[in-house]
Amino acid sequence: MRIIITGAGGFIGRKLVERLTDHDVVALDKVPEGIPERPNVIPVIGDIGDEAVLNEAFEGGCDAVVHLATIPGGAAEQAPELARKVNVDSTMRLVQFASLRGERTRFVFASSIAVFDHPFPALVDDSTQVSPTMLYGAHKAMMEQWLATMTRRGELDAISLRLSGVVARPKAPSGMKSAFLSNLFHSLRAGESFVVPVSEKAMCWLTSVECAASNFAHALTADLTKAPVNRTVTLPALQVCVSNLIAAVAKKTDSAPMLVSYVPDAELESTFGCYPPLATPAGDELGFTNDSNLTLLVERALAHCT
Amino acid sequence: MRIIITGAGGFIGRKLVERLTDHDVVALDKVPEGIPERPNVIPVIGDIGDEAVLNEAFEGGCDAVVHLATIPGGAAEQAPELARKVNVDSTMRLVQFASLRGERTRFVFASSIAVFDHPFPALVDDSTQVSPTMLYGAHKAMMEQWLATMTRRGELDAISLRLSGVVARPKAPSGMKSAFLSNLFHSLRAGESFVVPVSEKAMCWLTSVECAASNFAHALTADLTKAPVNRTVTLPALQVCVSNLIAAVAKKTDSAPMLVSYVPDAELESTFGCYPPLATPAGDELGFTNDSNLTLLVERALAHCT
Repeated sequence: MRIIITGAGGFIGRKLVERLTDHDVVALDKVPEGIPERPNVIPVIGDIGDEAVLNEAFEGGCDAVVHLATIPGGAAEQAPELARKVNVDSTMRLVQFASLRGERTRFVFASSIAVFDHPFPALVDDSTQVSPTMLYGAHKAMMEQWLATMTRRGELDAISLRLSGVVARPKAPSGMKSAFLSNLFHSLRAGESFVVPVSEKAMCWLTSVECAASNFAHALTADLTKAPVNRTVTLPALQVCVSNLIAAVAKKTDSAPMLVSYVPDAELESTFGCYPPLATPAGDELGFTNDSNLTLLVERALAHCT
Repeated sequence: MRIIITGAGGFIGRKLVERLTDHDVVALDKVPEGIPERPNVIPVIGDIGDEAVLNEAFEGGCDAVVHLATIPGGAAEQAPELARKVNVDSTMRLVQFASLRGERTRFVFASSIAVFDHPFPALVDDSTQVSPTMLYGAHKAMMEQWLATMTRRGELDAISLRLSGVVARPKAPSGMKSAFLSNLFHSLRAGESFVVPVSEKAMCWLTSVECAASNFAHALTADLTKAPVNRTVTLPALQVCVSNLIAAVAKKTDSAPMLVSYVPDAELESTFGCYPPLATPAGDELGFTNDSNLTLLVERALAHCT
């Protein structure tokens, strides 16, 4: 297969590119740093909103697209116009290219649980209505809708994967409001103190980057005949209580308990601290997975903290 | 109130402008023809995608927007790029203007039952999932989502009204696949024969332009505190069997029965001939109405056939 990956130098993109050793991978990103150098990887550097860049990416053909490039949550709030351009305009242009340049091209879209957003219902499952509050979540919900329509029309064979918080992202500010969920790994690994901005009982949904990349790779060839009509699934994730997460990270890093203190921030607590139980039967049915257990999740996440 | 209306010279826009005699109406359209000349009406001529035009429209302030301008169903299929520009890009720019230039501006958006689309479920009600197949329907569904998000954020006070087929539109090709539903009024009024492209038992949902304009006017001041969280309602419509519709029009126009023949087109029958029962409790609750009965609907529709 010849697979075009946007955001290929990003946190998830890199891991995904490294996995796809048996395919020709067109690795599209704004800058070359981060894109793995491999014989099967063709880097294309530029903006996905630039038609010349898309022409270059698609000129050798395209069997599948994985669209990871985005302006995420907090960054989108800071730059709404840029977020709209990347998350809506450029995404629709990419979809158009994929539909015109291929025959029912598999299109794997990185959506997000930001399509839900507070107040959450008592349980989130496949019947939960989307109700985003953040621009980012609204953009993702709109593109899910667009891709489902394009699939119904036979112009693409798309699946949108709603991703939970991925850990541990690099410590540099990522524009994500959920950055603290990654930073706690970095701090405890480094033996530094860490102030948790949510309460001990806060619940969150987490995924390691390995698990995320594995799910995106699976989506490239998964049998989608049983996919929901809206061609959208929430990816399985581990449901973790923050105090259990801290205990597991502290154990693996031999951190002293006094390194951690809790100073809940009302906004973060309401956004990232109140995740209800999650059921993902459609995702499970299609073969997507979570990290199985907290120990494995923490091991995988700590592997990214140097 | 100072009300900005896009598509103000169009079929519904004109009727709406004529109703709003107690308000300052900024009537925005691409061409001046069709915009009613009234002392309270300020015409603004240009493209809603043009910032200068929006600046002109908003410069005197804005208490409410009614956004009717669109590239409809069949026309959107013929010109997908233009449709995306008008139905998505320009609409999002208009929403941005309304959110920045006012304080929780009331924003009334003309959505469409094209957000449903075949195959229909056995009943369409407020819990029916959107599943558009036409580009037009997907664009409308995406903008409903965007307006609901902007309302949740407190940036607007929006309501999307899903409109059924409006009759009788002018006989000129309107770009709507449902044009036959209007053309049958024109033909029988003129004593001409008419070939119905669906079967006698075909069911459709219809609204007169008076009823549609009345619902849009109502939305300007309706109490939306009880509106659904997605800020979207399907407007009540009359559910009409085509043979009953033909009989009612024939009676009012003294047409001979032999003027009408049925030659069902498979695509039109599956798109416009299979509408299931419709329940609109959220719309009813907010005070929106249909034409009450077929006789009134036919009288109102025939009033537009000269």
